[in-house]
Amino acid sequence: MSKLVRKNIASMEGYSWGEQPKNNTNLIKLNTNENPYPPSPLVIQALQTLHADELIRTYPDPLADELRAEVAKLNQVTDKNIVITNGGDEGLRLSLTTFVDPGENVCFADPSYSLYPVLAAIQDASIKPIAYSEGWEIPEAFSKEINSHNAKMSYLVNPHAPSGNFYSLDTLDKIAQSAPGILLIDEAYADFIDPSLNYRSADLLKKHDNVLILRTFSKGYSLADLRLGYLMGSEALISPITSKTRDSYNIGSIQQKLGVAAISDQEYSRKIWNQIRENRTYLRKSLTALGLNSHPSQSNFILAEIDSQKVDAHSLYLSLKEEQIFVRYFQNELLKNKLRITVGTEEQNESLIKAIERITQ
Amino acid sequence: MSKLVRKNIASMEGYSWGEQPKNNTNLIKLNTNENPYPPSPLVIQALQTLHADELIRTYPDPLADELRAEVAKLNQVTDKNIVITNGGDEGLRLSLTTFVDPGENVCFADPSYSLYPVLAAIQDASIKPIAYSEGWEIPEAFSKEINSHNAKMSYLVNPHAPSGNFYSLDTLDKIAQSAPGILLIDEAYADFIDPSLNYRSADLLKKHDNVLILRTFSKGYSLADLRLGYLMGSEALISPITSKTRDSYNIGSIQQKLGVAAISDQEYSRKIWNQIRENRTYLRKSLTALGLNSHPSQSNFILAEIDSQKVDAHSLYLSLKEEQIFVRYFQNELLKNKLRITVGTEEQNESLIKAIERITQ
Repeated sequence: MSKLVRKNIASMEGYSWGEQPKNNTNLIKLNTNENPYPPSPLVIQALQTLHADELIRTYPDPLADELRAEVAKLNQVTDKNIVITNGGDEGLRLSLTTFVDPGENVCFADPSYSLYPVLAAIQDASIKPIAYSEGWEIPEAFSKEINSHNAKMSYLVNPHAPSGNFYSLDTLDKIAQSAPGILLIDEAYADFIDPSLNYRSADLLKKHDNVLILRTFSKGYSLADLRLGYLMGSEALISPITSKTRDSYNIGSIQQKLGVAAISDQEYSRKIWNQIRENRTYLRKSLTALGLNSHPSQSNFILAEIDSQKVDAHSLYLSLKEEQIFVRYFQNELLKNKLRITVGTEEQNESLIKAIERITQ
Repeated sequence: MSKLVRKNIASMEGYSWGEQPKNNTNLIKLNTNENPYPPSPLVIQALQTLHADELIRTYPDPLADELRAEVAKLNQVTDKNIVITNGGDEGLRLSLTTFVDPGENVCFADPSYSLYPVLAAIQDASIKPIAYSEGWEIPEAFSKEINSHNAKMSYLVNPHAPSGNFYSLDTLDKIAQSAPGILLIDEAYADFIDPSLNYRSADLLKKHDNVLILRTFSKGYSLADLRLGYLMGSEALISPITSKTRDSYNIGSIQQKLGVAAISDQEYSRKIWNQIRENRTYLRKSLTALGLNSHPSQSNFILAEIDSQKVDAHSLYLSLKEEQIFVRYFQNELLKNKLRITVGTEEQNESLIKAIERITQ
């Protein structure tokens, strides 16, 4: 590496993404939490009716106004509470660029999304993980520790990844209340929460001017390729991102138009989310029947514990891969005996169950 | 603005983008240097033959390998010398994130692309503009000043924006040789350079391990909406960007595939670039005939000086806008009596000339 590279960059490790095998045809890909169902037909229709020549040639709307208005309406907030980002990852990066000076402390309950410490290292912030224990409740000391660290930014993901555990609004409300800086609630998987839990975190924004909520179209709306996400927060937090730190043309018109089409078809989305919840229930039950226990999940994945005499988690991961079934293995003390398995279609889940049965019994 | 915002962000000004009027139908848009001709038919064909359902649902190739290989081949370098970015703007941002610590000095010949000081301010770097004089040659003191500032990063745009002036490889070679840090040559408009000038800056990479070259598909390939650009440099400079500082999924598959289609049709591109060079010659001659002098341009725009008794540059800009013709006015000491006019189609240029004639004579 060149000696011109910054010291913090030279010494850090980059993010390890889940395997993205290039020939997708004959494999079952349950390793990166993609939605197994296609996007709404309205998305495909929007793609096919673009005025492509003119649209591609010209710069997009820098503020993605139409999409922003739709997102605001969906969340019952105003345009000024929303900034559209190039995937959720851009939202996470901008939360640091805008609010965290190099050297300031960034906290997160650990393990969670392994990109948090990577982005914090790029910003040369000081990384303070707060350890989870089995059970995946937010660590009891979380509020105390973010205060003792005077954390400028704290990340929580709800439902938690990789466990799928769900935290109530009341829990988050208390943490936001006592947070010394910003609390960013990463809701990448919130579309899969059971509606009966009445989770509406946008309500937190009315009470707290230090809360950012991150959402993505990648999972719930089956648009992982489009790189569409958004941050919600008070105008005082969103405005410097919109007008200063964000790349001016961060989202192309194709992305904007397809995002609008996706969000307009809530009926389709609700149907898909329900189906995934049903598949999740079935998959969890089937895994349990094979001796693979898991925490209840409100997400589109299950963290299954491998407690077999015959294979450990890593070798099960490898054996499944040999059968063209991809799941996610993490090298981490709390996770090394577990696999994170994306909830697939009924057929995919059935194939997975049969393969696990063959390998473990 | 929230008191949680970083001081450098709170005190800086955001980038002012060129007007992007939303109803594009009846206007002549010569203000943001878009290519007036549509992208290659192969791009549209690629868009229409996407396996959209599956493609949109899944994450893209994080490294954009196919596009990267095509770009490497085109420039006669290796894959490891290339990182694909979300528009040229992401390349500029990453040049700071990867190489420039807060407080280090960033130099650029001024005026040029007004995003450079904005991005440097976001990185909390120290901004050291080096003033151009009329004539638009690289300031004589450029090498001396970047050394006296010990600049970690220096930006030059070739052909220069907003003048269109061209700098030879020999000139850049000498600056790179003496640069104390990285020299980034921003070649956003290099596709429009007259081929007889034999400009092949990739050759600089063989001699200098402190040179980054920035290219974009937005202008030359008529793909402004797709947000596709790339950085070229030594593997030692490119590798930390590819593996550490870049957002992992910065480019969607639709973008990647359409980029490959565009680059594969060099015959079409060469035809378009030639046409724009012819239109440029015609437009410059016509403007001169109306008393609007300009520096010779090797880009797809002309910086015209308004020397009329009847109107100044700002009022001409406003009058043209009233006639639905958009050009770019900059509030800057060296530019306040000038307008930057994108070279349009033959018809657009004709309409512009007639409008200027009506307004100024």
